[in-house]
Amino acid sequence: MAELTRRAADYSKWYNELVIRADLAENSGVRGSMVIKPYGFAIWERIQQQLDKMFKDTGHVNAYFPLLIPKSHLAKEAEHVEGFAKEVAVVTHYRLKADRAGGGIVVDPKAELEEALIIRPTSETIVWDTYKRWIQSYRDLPLLINQWANVVRWEMRTRLFLRTAEFLWQEGHTAHATEAEAVAEAKRMQEVYADFVENFMGIPIIKGVKTPSERFAGALETYTVEAMMQDGKALQVGTSHFLGQNFARAFDVKFTDRNGKESYVWATSWGVSTRLMGALIMAHADDRGLVLPPNLAPIQVVIIPIYKGQAELERVSAVARALQQKLQSRGIRVRFDDCDTHKPGWKFNEYELKGVPLRVAIGPKDLENATIELARRDTLKKQLIALDKAVDEIPHLLRGIQKQLFDKARAFRNARTTEVQSYPEFKKVLDSRGGFLSMLWDGSAETEVGIQRETRATIRCIPSDASEAEGTDPYSGKPAKLRVLYAKAY
Amino acid sequence: MAELTRRAADYSKWYNELVIRADLAENSGVRGSMVIKPYGFAIWERIQQQLDKMFKDTGHVNAYFPLLIPKSHLAKEAEHVEGFAKEVAVVTHYRLKADRAGGGIVVDPKAELEEALIIRPTSETIVWDTYKRWIQSYRDLPLLINQWANVVRWEMRTRLFLRTAEFLWQEGHTAHATEAEAVAEAKRMQEVYADFVENFMGIPIIKGVKTPSERFAGALETYTVEAMMQDGKALQVGTSHFLGQNFARAFDVKFTDRNGKESYVWATSWGVSTRLMGALIMAHADDRGLVLPPNLAPIQVVIIPIYKGQAELERVSAVARALQQKLQSRGIRVRFDDCDTHKPGWKFNEYELKGVPLRVAIGPKDLENATIELARRDTLKKQLIALDKAVDEIPHLLRGIQKQLFDKARAFRNARTTEVQSYPEFKKVLDSRGGFLSMLWDGSAETEVGIQRETRATIRCIPSDASEAEGTDPYSGKPAKLRVLYAKAY
Repeated sequence: MAELTRRAADYSKWYNELVIRADLAENSGVRGSMVIKPYGFAIWERIQQQLDKMFKDTGHVNAYFPLLIPKSHLAKEAEHVEGFAKEVAVVTHYRLKADRAGGGIVVDPKAELEEALIIRPTSETIVWDTYKRWIQSYRDLPLLINQWANVVRWEMRTRLFLRTAEFLWQEGHTAHATEAEAVAEAKRMQEVYADFVENFMGIPIIKGVKTPSERFAGALETYTVEAMMQDGKALQVGTSHFLGQNFARAFDVKFTDRNGKESYVWATSWGVSTRLMGALIMAHADDRGLVLPPNLAPIQVVIIPIYKGQAELERVSAVARALQQKLQSRGIRVRFDDCDTHKPGWKFNEYELKGVPLRVAIGPKDLENATIELARRDTLKKQLIALDKAVDEIPHLLRGIQKQLFDKARAFRNARTTEVQSYPEFKKVLDSRGGFLSMLWDGSAETEVGIQRETRATIRCIPSDASEAEGTDPYSGKPAKLRVLYAKAY
Repeated sequence: MAELTRRAADYSKWYNELVIRADLAENSGVRGSMVIKPYGFAIWERIQQQLDKMFKDTGHVNAYFPLLIPKSHLAKEAEHVEGFAKEVAVVTHYRLKADRAGGGIVVDPKAELEEALIIRPTSETIVWDTYKRWIQSYRDLPLLINQWANVVRWEMRTRLFLRTAEFLWQEGHTAHATEAEAVAEAKRMQEVYADFVENFMGIPIIKGVKTPSERFAGALETYTVEAMMQDGKALQVGTSHFLGQNFARAFDVKFTDRNGKESYVWATSWGVSTRLMGALIMAHADDRGLVLPPNLAPIQVVIIPIYKGQAELERVSAVARALQQKLQSRGIRVRFDDCDTHKPGWKFNEYELKGVPLRVAIGPKDLENATIELARRDTLKKQLIALDKAVDEIPHLLRGIQKQLFDKARAFRNARTTEVQSYPEFKKVLDSRGGFLSMLWDGSAETEVGIQRETRATIRCIPSDASEAEGTDPYSGKPAKLRVLYAKAY
């Protein structure tokens, strides 16, 4: 097989090829809809399991709300409909019929719905239409609910994982008695996402809030978690929204407090999607293929037998299987690949492409010397170790790889973060090495839009740890009090 | 709160009330679409986890295929389109726009899709359109893939869990090199379903095959697992289809075998859905509420403190929490409900309604005597046991409840299974006590349809263990060689 396009040659082509070759996903016959292949889905399942555990550990429960939403529901919250109406899939009929003339099947014109239904692009409206029935008293609060679901947004330009018409995600929708509690929940979920992305995906993040023009449609504040990819572009890896009382007002959801007073309920919503798969790939993978952090790798260790003939295979297999069992009993995910349709060299390439963190090779020499050969996917370094040390050494190495991936990504991110003082410098740095550009901002949408139009960079966030600054916005010349992070973004 | 309608008074009303009151699900604002509430979803999650494990243990992997299917795909397999075209939700547009005249939003007539898309009612067509790209050689086979997904079938009369426009399910889609292997796979998954329903749901089943007229649209054989509800009606709790080469032909999926010969691939598909929730309720629940089998109960044991005043609560809580921890360390799901907004009597009713298998009450008397009070949900019997015996006794009791529920359901099923010799007897038994009626069948669709029209009973299956019989079909008077099972069904 031809080699993968190199990142330096064409980053975008490298990404598209890798997603296909590593068996993660592919385009389907339906424009913008992807098929997530078993290997890609196995990674997504690990992401799901870990996040689900973190949501439950913070007191959330799962539920399921309908896929189809009446058109009129969407219209109830003004900014929300403005944000989503232009990209929804609309169901207008409920039956097909044989086309006697043409021989195929056609939409039955007699089966038109009275009110069109839209496929959820997000579920705030159907959720709050439901919460209206569930919430009467302060005793019903807080409601801390999450759902794992598919959503559809009719995107014009699509890309596997990064932007697809249908994608999988989780969306949390919570209801609270007070503003302070809702704000605390929105921030807490930003922390959960930050924790997950750093400690499981191995990607360093910046926490902050979005500017008003980048907020979720209907939110008063959007807390974001931003990461940097290897091409210096930003990717938003999680957002958590403080929705104020907007949806409660739109759907008339009130509760009676301890003193008998009626008030509107306070809301949050928060979500991450299969976009995370794109981040996972673009943060760590190299010119040989995927590089998966051990905490999310479906296969953490692959054992490949080196042998000639059946007798040698049997002797090698006995040692390999014993090692596999010992590692599995320590909770490590190990595949022993003794499939005879491919040679070891082919397998080495294949598991490199698929990003398996550790490869073990065992051959007749190793049997004699009681050794195994270990190869790390991240550094590509090989070492011989004593077989009887392997069970202790391998978990240790996996932890080391997890840490090393994070450290490497953080060093890269830091090297590509530049504090710029002037607009010419801004443009120069953006064109030369990209990355995050920290620059004073006057707080106006005009500046934001102006810079975006001229450079395609947007304000990724106002960092949480931004210190107060006094100065001038280099673009507008107006007074500025904040340094914000600009970047080109996915 | 008013008492639940009794089963004997109105079984159907009892079911509908129970689903709502036990917080399992409710109707949404979209006709036929339900909201699965957190408690109902927690049960579904346990069903999912267990089945997913069983699928993986039998060599299957998960993947994800698109929600939207081009209309032309559905049309490719003739019987399949015949079976589903009348009940699909059709997406015709991809945008809404502001209605300047009316002030709301309307479907944008300029955003009509070139080809209408349907929301998957099942995924054979999109899966086989994909498998065409994945399968070339015998080396690519078998493909053993499952997906967890939502599907939509536009049902006219809907009922929570039993028949909803949108439902959640899993659908396995496998591809094989030989007919024998595909048949073996279809049968194996029937066994997996039978194992799950009997040993986790606690419901005895009958295995068999469907008659040709009851087969899945596009299948050559449908293997089914049938259960009986407490009203004597049957409910199909799992089907596994041998699809022959129908979908491979429709989508032109061929493979080259070891000898270089090209052949069409053999297929199966198999699924269970949120309908299982309906079976779980109707098989075990009683006039006081749900009765959950311990293997699927989100809460297996609830501990309720009995106390007056804060000091007493603290002393009781210390004992309760210690017991909770010990039980949890044995893998038991325990809730300690010390919420002070409700009295113990209210809690007793609530957890009875929710079907929690074991209730533990601990009060000041128990502290003195080092005892706890245990109440079984299935028998409603109470007993005092020594506190220091509880950690051993409770797991034992949970296993006993699981077995007892199955035994009771089996005794009921057996008592309601009647071998009938004449058609008048058939009608008499069906009207009086319902249940499964075993009767000789001549093998014709005419008889099947005739009986259904006259009695509303259908052939649930030709049981796998049916012995060869020689006789006359009591309905048609024609020769018959098989005893089949008739019943009214959900």
